[in-house]
Amino acid sequence: MAVYTEVGDDELREFTAQYDIGELLSCKGIAEGVENSNFLLTTARGNFILTLYEKRVTRADLPFFIGLMDHLAHHGVACPTPVRARDGEALRELCGRPAAIVTFLNGMWPRRIDPAHCAGLGAALATLHRAGAGFALARPNDLGPAGWHKLYAGCAERAGAFQPGLGAEIEAELGFFDSAWPTDLPKGVIHADLFPDNVFFRDHELSGLIDFYFACTDFLAYDLAICLNAWCFEADLSFNVTKARLLVGNYQKIRPLDTAELASLPVLARGSALRFLLTRLYDWLHQTEGALVRPKDPTEFLKKLRFHRGVRGPAAYGIDA
Amino acid sequence: MAVYTEVGDDELREFTAQYDIGELLSCKGIAEGVENSNFLLTTARGNFILTLYEKRVTRADLPFFIGLMDHLAHHGVACPTPVRARDGEALRELCGRPAAIVTFLNGMWPRRIDPAHCAGLGAALATLHRAGAGFALARPNDLGPAGWHKLYAGCAERAGAFQPGLGAEIEAELGFFDSAWPTDLPKGVIHADLFPDNVFFRDHELSGLIDFYFACTDFLAYDLAICLNAWCFEADLSFNVTKARLLVGNYQKIRPLDTAELASLPVLARGSALRFLLTRLYDWLHQTEGALVRPKDPTEFLKKLRFHRGVRGPAAYGIDA
Repeated sequence: MAVYTEVGDDELREFTAQYDIGELLSCKGIAEGVENSNFLLTTARGNFILTLYEKRVTRADLPFFIGLMDHLAHHGVACPTPVRARDGEALRELCGRPAAIVTFLNGMWPRRIDPAHCAGLGAALATLHRAGAGFALARPNDLGPAGWHKLYAGCAERAGAFQPGLGAEIEAELGFFDSAWPTDLPKGVIHADLFPDNVFFRDHELSGLIDFYFACTDFLAYDLAICLNAWCFEADLSFNVTKARLLVGNYQKIRPLDTAELASLPVLARGSALRFLLTRLYDWLHQTEGALVRPKDPTEFLKKLRFHRGVRGPAAYGIDA
Repeated sequence: MAVYTEVGDDELREFTAQYDIGELLSCKGIAEGVENSNFLLTTARGNFILTLYEKRVTRADLPFFIGLMDHLAHHGVACPTPVRARDGEALRELCGRPAAIVTFLNGMWPRRIDPAHCAGLGAALATLHRAGAGFALARPNDLGPAGWHKLYAGCAERAGAFQPGLGAEIEAELGFFDSAWPTDLPKGVIHADLFPDNVFFRDHELSGLIDFYFACTDFLAYDLAICLNAWCFEADLSFNVTKARLLVGNYQKIRPLDTAELASLPVLARGSALRFLLTRLYDWLHQTEGALVRPKDPTEFLKKLRFHRGVRGPAAYGIDA
């Protein structure tokens, strides 16, 4: 939870005057989001979200993210729509940072996941993948296998101090993926970070997806593998096959997986677990004093990784091949 | 900036169902406020604020705070109005904490203070003092002179380490106030924490006062002295007489100060500076690792205290006696 940049009222009034969103009535920093500063704007026309992009987001990637949200919102995906100012531009500058206003989505993210959430998620993810097919821009996934090596290089020295044997275990995984990572699965736009706090529901009806700032071009099935990790483990880290079956089953009603994708799910899920293990480990080992965000425990994803390492095929996820 | 308690979506839906505020559409933690957890609720009827009272607020004081906002809102003060649930109760419980929903106030707090803000503030403060006269409950100011001794007791040992000589200077001040603090000025309900972040404006028109959780029964002129400290110093800590004159002048148009109050302003302002010096010093010396809120620099109020110590009468504040 964080707001990194304080926005002055005068600056903000001047900024919002460039838009046709009505008189600015209120602006509150939102205590959610790790990468950027988010504010809830209330205007005479309703609520909007103002985002200031902080240093962890690369400026050159912003046209991809903004363009993607715009494309998806106009192709049937419930997601924030970038609001264009009167000059037609959605991506602007405020307080020396890139900034954009997007529409406000109703709904709340679920704190306790039940199977119905996973069913809605599967359908929404497949809808996103289909809608993304027509998007013209591409962005490589810098948190794919090559990125894992880089992340680990920043952790290697102290991984053993965090947990004995962790370094060797990660190195073995990196070696495994160097040869085992798929090379020829259907690719497209993926969200790449579809954890529960990025998915809104009204009651049990999915009302929107947010936070597209890890979106990239990668294997579509990898997005599903990320969701298996993010949605289908219980608090005790047992794997809930019912949730997985609903997630993948409802995905397939809209976008059926091919044989290679189904067969690759275990290795994709294992790789996805490694990706979150590494980013969390990196953040854990590189904490700065006085930081506004507490790093998350990396061991959760070490345990998930080990689970997937033991999986021999998609049937272990409750999926009929 | 902080949200100390995470509220589950199910719990929240159950909680808001007790109110006639329409369907709950969204809930965002607000990155403002130091003492409590605040959430912006959006419902089918508009925006509301949900506050969960954390451990620094004494439960026994809540009926005073909630009752006061209710009283003031119904007597012409623009402030959050507690929303009663269907059973008539505004103060409830959520996630094991006392909780209340209040109305949402439009406006933003000013980051750059100009004289017009101080003029509006003076009028609003006097209106608050007049409206508070009919409020039946009382609450002693636990951050008055007796409270300063207690606060200092928790700082004495390490005050010198923070700044050489600071302990002796504070002890001299405490000794001074033991005899010099007024005993017979007009009393009533005061806000006691009316810093810029608790005062909302739309353009330069004051639109509301918030955060009544330091409100208490004390000298009315002490509230004005707090505002002199909170609004009339520039960033370089020079005192802006124009702002002070507008603040006090516009206050007096609605509630004229008597001779004793005017004469007491310098000692009240000096005491108010000591109060904020002590709470900031206490928080500075008692930082806990991983805290979500960074303590504010205490030396700002040490310098303000020294300024008031040199003041011989209200004329130094630009006020005609």
